Amino acid sequence: MQVLVIGAAGMVGRKLAQRLAGDGVLGAEVIDSMLLVDVVSPTVLPGGVRVETVVSDLCELGVACGVTAARPEVIFDLAAVVSGEAEIDFEKGYRVNLDATRHLLEAVRTVGDGYRPRVVFSSSVAVFGPPFPDVIGDEQATTPATSYGTQKAIVELLLADYSRRGFIDGVGVRLPTICVRPGAPNRAASGFFSGVIREPLNGREAVLPVSRDVRHWFASPRAAVRFLVRAATMDTSELGLRRSLTMPGVSATVDEEIAALRRVGGDQAVALIRDEPDEMIARMVGSWPRAFDARRAAALGFVAETDFDEIVRVYVDDELDGPTLDGQGRL
Amino acid sequence: MQVLVIGAAGMVGRKLAQRLAGDGVLGAEVIDSMLLVDVVSPTVLPGGVRVETVVSDLCELGVACGVTAARPEVIFDLAAVVSGEAEIDFEKGYRVNLDATRHLLEAVRTVGDGYRPRVVFSSSVAVFGPPFPDVIGDEQATTPATSYGTQKAIVELLLADYSRRGFIDGVGVRLPTICVRPGAPNRAASGFFSGVIREPLNGREAVLPVSRDVRHWFASPRAAVRFLVRAATMDTSELGLRRSLTMPGVSATVDEEIAALRRVGGDQAVALIRDEPDEMIARMVGSWPRAFDARRAAALGFVAETDFDEIVRVYVDDELDGPTLDGQGRL
Repeated sequence: MQVLVIGAAGMVGRKLAQRLAGDGVLGAEVIDSMLLVDVVSPTVLPGGVRVETVVSDLCELGVACGVTAARPEVIFDLAAVVSGEAEIDFEKGYRVNLDATRHLLEAVRTVGDGYRPRVVFSSSVAVFGPPFPDVIGDEQATTPATSYGTQKAIVELLLADYSRRGFIDGVGVRLPTICVRPGAPNRAASGFFSGVIREPLNGREAVLPVSRDVRHWFASPRAAVRFLVRAATMDTSELGLRRSLTMPGVSATVDEEIAALRRVGGDQAVALIRDEPDEMIARMVGSWPRAFDARRAAALGFVAETDFDEIVRVYVDDELDGPTLDGQGRL
Repeated sequence: MQVLVIGAAGMVGRKLAQRLAGDGVLGAEVIDSMLLVDVVSPTVLPGGVRVETVVSDLCELGVACGVTAARPEVIFDLAAVVSGEAEIDFEKGYRVNLDATRHLLEAVRTVGDGYRPRVVFSSSVAVFGPPFPDVIGDEQATTPATSYGTQKAIVELLLADYSRRGFIDGVGVRLPTICVRPGAPNRAASGFFSGVIREPLNGREAVLPVSRDVRHWFASPRAAVRFLVRAATMDTSELGLRRSLTMPGVSATVDEEIAALRRVGGDQAVALIRDEPDEMIARMVGSWPRAFDARRAAALGFVAETDFDEIVRVYVDDELDGPTLDGQGRL
């Protein structure tokens, strides 16, 4: 089996490629080779799987045809301009988040000849916009409050239509906000949700731009990879026209995040959080969903964390080499 | 005020242009000029309003910039490839129903300089797909069962985002199936809903490709024009992120259509209906919605017919010159 990962240099893309290279299989199939594509160089991975990396921009004509030429059986489409950037640069957002994915779908369609790969698309809960119920069900209309959410909702529609027409076998995975993101902050407006955990656990100050009663929907990077793998291997015959699934997650307030941080990092970690209200970020976050009843995805075998403490533990396990937890689960 | 009508040679476009030319006003504003655009020549209308017609294809680069150069305050975007044709010709459907409208939105956006026209977009209840509840509410997810419905749902998302960003002031009008369509049948799979009324009332045989218990959602051409005018003149400040509205209509079965036909045209009209099941049409129609609770649009002043008899009467009044109704409302 050949696997193509577009957006392989991103945080989730890297972790996905790492897991696939380590597993050497995807579901019941042995992975013969992986092609990792991004606009910056994806990391080359150790492991038995043959990995090729390409630095390329799917916005450019012909690139999509090139990367699908070997007819990968599974395509992960994870490339995106994040929410903050898509809001600031309108044209870039549409070019990267909509047009590049459409090029990919068209490249696959025009191969013809019975080629019908599984296409796993990383969508987002940003497809929903206010006013919405406190708990959002699977049949809620997508009325995005950002250009990023709009672009994701449009690709969901394309994914469903191309699947219905038999050009692809698509699954859209509406990721919760991924938390705790390792490494340097990116330009996503949601970055602080990770920052308030990550920075203090690394002895650095964290800036909190919203009030502590803000509630949001989370899953760990490890859960995100699990979702993508599940979407790549699941039986899609039950999806019907609804090819995109809201992923399960943990609904938590910033206060609950901080309580989980305190249980792991103690008061000295919490003391590193500095409130610095940011009007623009508060307005964007205020338009984001707070909780979901993701029963369709749950019934189809998608599993997230059960509480925010578990999300923090995943970060400590996967990202922090030095410190170890004591008997009470504290650093 | 300047008004631009794209798709002005279509059935609804013609009737809209005719009404606007007759009224000479749109809401409180006097119409100084109208620009009618279509791929075939729109009819030139009598009346006091200065009317210019252009035969042009918005799929071609530059055309959208040309037709918006005079900065019309109101733009009606009615151009579309119908459902049956968009299903048969995948590429044409996306080119006309998605890309051409995107060209229009981009042409308006790149004018800049505070230009922010009202854009009224004719969407469709085909944005919904099964399984859905018997009566569909305003917050139902758009999960189209056709490429046509997909293209409409995508443009709805663009319309909302371009409005939110302040580039346009958009309103999407989800039209019911328009019935009774005058004139020759078009390639829409829904054509028979009109045909079973129109053809017998004109002494011709009508072919019915689906079973008589099929239920669907209807409004007259006159109501469609009323919806578009309302959308062009309404206060949009209450719409928020939800720029597209499901229009009110009449939920009726083919049996109920035929009963209404009998009351107007008698048994001899009904006898002209010939059942000739068509598998492909039956499958498409089976995936269409049957009834709506369109309370948002109703609260915003959109008014349809109250029963199918009224829909038939509108056809007789507006389209049949010769025959007149007797005292019992029969031809």
